[in-house]
Order: sequence, then structure tokens, then C-alpha cells
Amino acid sequence: MVGPVDVALHPDVEALGPLLGTWTGTGEGSYPTIEPFRYREEVVFGHVGKPFLAYRQATTRLDTGLPAHAEAGYVRGVQGGRIELVLAHPTGIAELAEGEVVTEPGRVVLHLASVNMTGTATAKDVTRVERTITVEGDVLRYDLAMAAVGQPHQHHLAAELHRVG
Amino acid sequence: MVGPVDVALHPDVEALGPLLGTWTGTGEGSYPTIEPFRYREEVVFGHVGKPFLAYRQATTRLDTGLPAHAEAGYVRGVQGGRIELVLAHPTGIAELAEGEVVTEPGRVVLHLASVNMTGTATAKDVTRVERTITVEGDVLRYDLAMAAVGQPHQHHLAAELHRVG
Repeated sequence: MVGPVDVALHPDVEALGPLLGTWTGTGEGSYPTIEPFRYREEVVFGHVGKPFLAYRQATTRLDTGLPAHAEAGYVRGVQGGRIELVLAHPTGIAELAEGEVVTEPGRVVLHLASVNMTGTATAKDVTRVERTITVEGDVLRYDLAMAAVGQPHQHHLAAELHRVG
Repeated sequence: MVGPVDVALHPDVEALGPLLGTWTGTGEGSYPTIEPFRYREEVVFGHVGKPFLAYRQATTRLDTGLPAHAEAGYVRGVQGGRIELVLAHPTGIAELAEGEVVTEPGRVVLHLASVNMTGTATAKDVTRVERTITVEGDVLRYDLAMAAVGQPHQHHLAAELHRVG
């Protein structure tokens, strides 16, 4: 239901068109509190003609093959190249982020920084997240930095995905 | 990726097993600030063996056939029958709710009340949401009450869905 549908993109998310589709690939994660790890990932961006993209992803550990992280939510287009992210994490965290989409020759770049991180009673402690997502044709790369569990804001994840649908 | 997989349910979400699958049906909405409306809905609950269910839904208006609401997130199982909901709305809202799952003869009932509603800069103003979800075999019914746009907390949505997968 969140896959591409046969309606035009809403003008407020037209700049996000290059993200639409299904992407798979691998990434690497590190943080002072854990051992570095590698993961396989699937990302899906879809739309229904309204001023947002539906987004979800899930990862599995490359070493064990077991499910690792997942997240699901929406990228909202606001006029003037501004975007907002509303994201649910199964770790109990809700992430609200704001930023911009920049269209450059041959690529589109999203910059998003959290403006409000909230959690349920049993959620992990994550206080800040920054994401940069770059799409060049059929390649999607992202970097994610975060401040969590008492650690300063720093690099956590980087991945390169390829369009598969 | 969020559909049922061939692994056992995590013990912390075992009581939520009856929700797993794909559900479709119709519902009715009303609120003092809008005309009453009817909608078609699809709901999917899946799991990957971890202590949460992935959840997403989308609705279309019955009168126009156009996409209406959508939401996506996770129901987390906490020991002792407690549950937590982390939910992203494309309207810019993140909903954190807590509650319980009650297993009765022939049915399972979820009660969830928001504990933290947050929104992006351009989000709709929703301050409280309460959900009751009941599954009896292949029928899923829910009621949703909310306080929004300055109105007191009150009934907003009711739907009856049937399992299709």
C-alpha cells in the first residue's frame, strides 16, 4: 500500500521523487557502547498523491542474519524545499525531524535534524539524530549521527543501497 | 517485510498473536469540526520474532475513493500484559501510547491511551488519543477517541475489519 501508485506526486514532495521505490544494500554501524556491525537493509519510499512520502526500512545483521533495526514513518514536504520527518522506532522512540531537500545536478540530498525525540516508559535513551540521505540515480546513500545513552552526538550508521523496484 | 514470518512470536507479544495478518473493512468518522465520513481501511500487523508488532494502516474515503488517513508504527510488548504504541502520522504527529492487552474467552482487547503527543512545526493539533482494539477470530473492531483542534476528548472513529490474509 505504500508502494508507488499511479497518481502524480504532490507538488510539495516533487523534489523527493528520486527517492520513490524499493532499495536494498548493506551498511555499517558503530558507537562507543557497542561492537561495530554490518547489516543488510531494505528501504521503501511510496506515495499516494498527498504531500508526503511513506517510508519504512528494516535491517538484518550480516553476521547472524537476524532482524536488527526497523523504523517507519513519513517524510512531509513543506513549501520552499523544507521537509519534515515523523518516524516511529520499535525501540519505543518517536523521532520528529526537520530539514531541507536540495536538488543538485545529478542528485538530490536530504538533510534532517531531530527537533523532538520522545520515548515510551521503556524506550532507549536517544536525544538527537541527524540524517543525510543522497540519491544519485539508482544509488541511495545515507549517514546517520546520533546522541544516545549518555554519549555525545557522533557518527553511527552509513549505508549504500541500490534500487531494486 | 512486515508481514508474518516463519519465526515464533516473542513471549512479550504472544498475547498479541490474534492481531497478526492483513485486515480490510470499513469505518465511520465524525468530529465537531468536520462532516461525518465513511472510509475503507487496510490494516497490517506483522512481526519478526522480536518483542513488538509492526503496524500500518491506510484509509480511502468511501465517497471519493481518495486516500485519507494513514499511520505506521509499532506495538511493543512489555511484561505483565502491558503494551506501548509508537506511531507516526503523515499529518506530522508522533503518538506515544501505553496500555494493556486483555485476553478474554474468544477475544483479545487492547486498551491504549496516549502519554505523549508531539508534532512537527506544521502538524495538526492533536492532544490526546485513546484506542480500543478488539479481535474476535477473524473480526477486528476498533474505536478511537481524540482531543484535537481545541475540542474536548470525544469519539472520532469506529471500524470493523475482516481478516484477508
